[in-house]
Amino acid sequence: MFAADAPVAARSKAAAQAARVRQRQLTKPPGSLGMLEDLAVRFAGWQGCVTPVLERVAVRVFAADHGVCAHGISAFPQAVTCQMIANFCAGGAAISVLSRAQGFDFAVWNMGTIEPVPAMPGLIDRQVAAGSADICRGPAMTAAQLRACLQAGWEAVPPQAQLFIGGEMGIGNTTAAAALMAALYDLDGAAVAGAGTGLDAAGVAHKTAVIDTALARHRGGERDSLSQLRCLGGLEIAALVGAFLGAAQRGVPVLVDGFIGGVALACAARVNPGVLDWTLFAHCSAERAHRDLLRRLDVRPLLDLDMRLGEGSGAALAVPILRQALALHSGMATFAAAGVSDKQGSKKGDKK
Amino acid sequence: MFAADAPVAARSKAAAQAARVRQRQLTKPPGSLGMLEDLAVRFAGWQGCVTPVLERVAVRVFAADHGVCAHGISAFPQAVTCQMIANFCAGGAAISVLSRAQGFDFAVWNMGTIEPVPAMPGLIDRQVAAGSADICRGPAMTAAQLRACLQAGWEAVPPQAQLFIGGEMGIGNTTAAAALMAALYDLDGAAVAGAGTGLDAAGVAHKTAVIDTALARHRGGERDSLSQLRCLGGLEIAALVGAFLGAAQRGVPVLVDGFIGGVALACAARVNPGVLDWTLFAHCSAERAHRDLLRRLDVRPLLDLDMRLGEGSGAALAVPILRQALALHSGMATFAAAGVSDKQGSKKGDKK
Repeated sequence: MFAADAPVAARSKAAAQAARVRQRQLTKPPGSLGMLEDLAVRFAGWQGCVTPVLERVAVRVFAADHGVCAHGISAFPQAVTCQMIANFCAGGAAISVLSRAQGFDFAVWNMGTIEPVPAMPGLIDRQVAAGSADICRGPAMTAAQLRACLQAGWEAVPPQAQLFIGGEMGIGNTTAAAALMAALYDLDGAAVAGAGTGLDAAGVAHKTAVIDTALARHRGGERDSLSQLRCLGGLEIAALVGAFLGAAQRGVPVLVDGFIGGVALACAARVNPGVLDWTLFAHCSAERAHRDLLRRLDVRPLLDLDMRLGEGSGAALAVPILRQALALHSGMATFAAAGVSDKQGSKKGDKK
Repeated sequence: MFAADAPVAARSKAAAQAARVRQRQLTKPPGSLGMLEDLAVRFAGWQGCVTPVLERVAVRVFAADHGVCAHGISAFPQAVTCQMIANFCAGGAAISVLSRAQGFDFAVWNMGTIEPVPAMPGLIDRQVAAGSADICRGPAMTAAQLRACLQAGWEAVPPQAQLFIGGEMGIGNTTAAAALMAALYDLDGAAVAGAGTGLDAAGVAHKTAVIDTALARHRGGERDSLSQLRCLGGLEIAALVGAFLGAAQRGVPVLVDGFIGGVALACAARVNPGVLDWTLFAHCSAERAHRDLLRRLDVRPLLDLDMRLGEGSGAALAVPILRQALALHSGMATFAAAGVSDKQGSKKGDKK
């Protein structure tokens, strides 16, 4: 059951420390695997095991529509949300291809689209409304709808997963995410609006004005981050927040995808800063405000490839880096076992 | 047979163009897969096929010792070169672990170590000298030795490979590579010296002075890049140059690893600029001059993870990004096939 204030799971300091020691014994100059060494140490702490493995990866794509689309803030028609849900389930979308290729546990959660989507394999129906309400005119969702989305996200995380990826799909959701980021960090529309799926400069200017209208509409309201999420977010963004909190509370590390996932993570970390102890950041997207968001969170992503697709695609792309970091950590020989001299020049063992 | 001036292989403009068209038809906003889209288009041109695949990856680690080690420019003793050759072949080194995990065709070529290395599975013996000569006192190698190294590198590339990774191992080889970079770009030791396997500030200052001594020794000599390679390089660096030229000449794309591989590629590109048409850059290493080298080559690497191990490890780590780029390119549905509306809002086909 979702509870915003439940503490995050404990990590094993002993396993992390043992992994740090192991890294220094492997046949390479100390530190020469860079961020891969830190990844291995973090997974050791998460799994309570000096040689962790990454087999069970769960991907959940949360989809929903956005009332703010009434203002023409997307390059794509709103019907695409429902069409892409079918494409996810049929295996034709980017996240479907990446998940299938890597053997991920994959499912799509429909949190609320303007038209109902029929049942299909791989689709979980958790529609709480026919899309969120227009954030320029009122809150995106009611308190009951917010609770339902947070609870759905919480339920979507398989507790036995070794990594959780939360994707999203929803025409208009960079507008909602940008507005939420602006509220969380006290910024204006110009600081957060980007091209989304492909707006031109005039489109971005209009989107900026729409975000400023939404921010003005809710200014003076409650300042806690879940209220800001309720007023400015979207149904799938709220589900992501519930999923990220639920993952950290149950000891499932999260690999955050792009801008929208990053804003959801920032919101979850405001609710419970411990979430960051269970979080990795996959990539810096080309969506304009993402680099600034990562800077504000003081985190370094693994990839920076100008991607801006969402769906969880950047996170899925980064999983082989995690898996290879753990394969190196577990599979490399130690100086002693390989009969290789270390930095000081002492040969620590006989060659085997 | 190695020939420096043989032209590089032709690429298929038609296949690349067809791949570009296909990218625009896939169910995603145009451009939203960022650099992954360019990778798919480049492989299409290389393979002459609109939906290329990446199955056969060849990794060759060239190893050699360096006479410049007499000046104490490495944090590790010189014996480590031979010890690591055994570790590569036994499967305990980073590049061994990564190659095994991904099914690469892997072999180690010994170009010349201070002590002979006995025969072992996976090791090709092409020793041309007991290490290179001290570049502070004379040329690293003779003209005959340079030819033998270039020829060995050329032979090491399997013509049927779909990607070639050239790794290197040789205590002291960041000093040789830095000196070669300085000669290629008319720089001094301070601009190119880095910590290598782990020098402290005093060690880097000493290494800087050693590089300046070597540069002064060879100043006024022949200015062509193969002569600079002969005077300042190393046996394994010369083999890399031969391999990169040979790969491009026979139509095998190259994924360059870190600093030493990057300097070898820069040297090869001086000999034949067409080499760059067949080259991808895997990562920016933490070795100090590498970012500057990539800037001078005007290329953007795929990864930036503070790695500085060499061996080809950064390139091996990046292969899943290439494979996923091609899986997305071939495996994603088109707008028409999936019944998804495109940017202009026209639904191009019926849902299947």
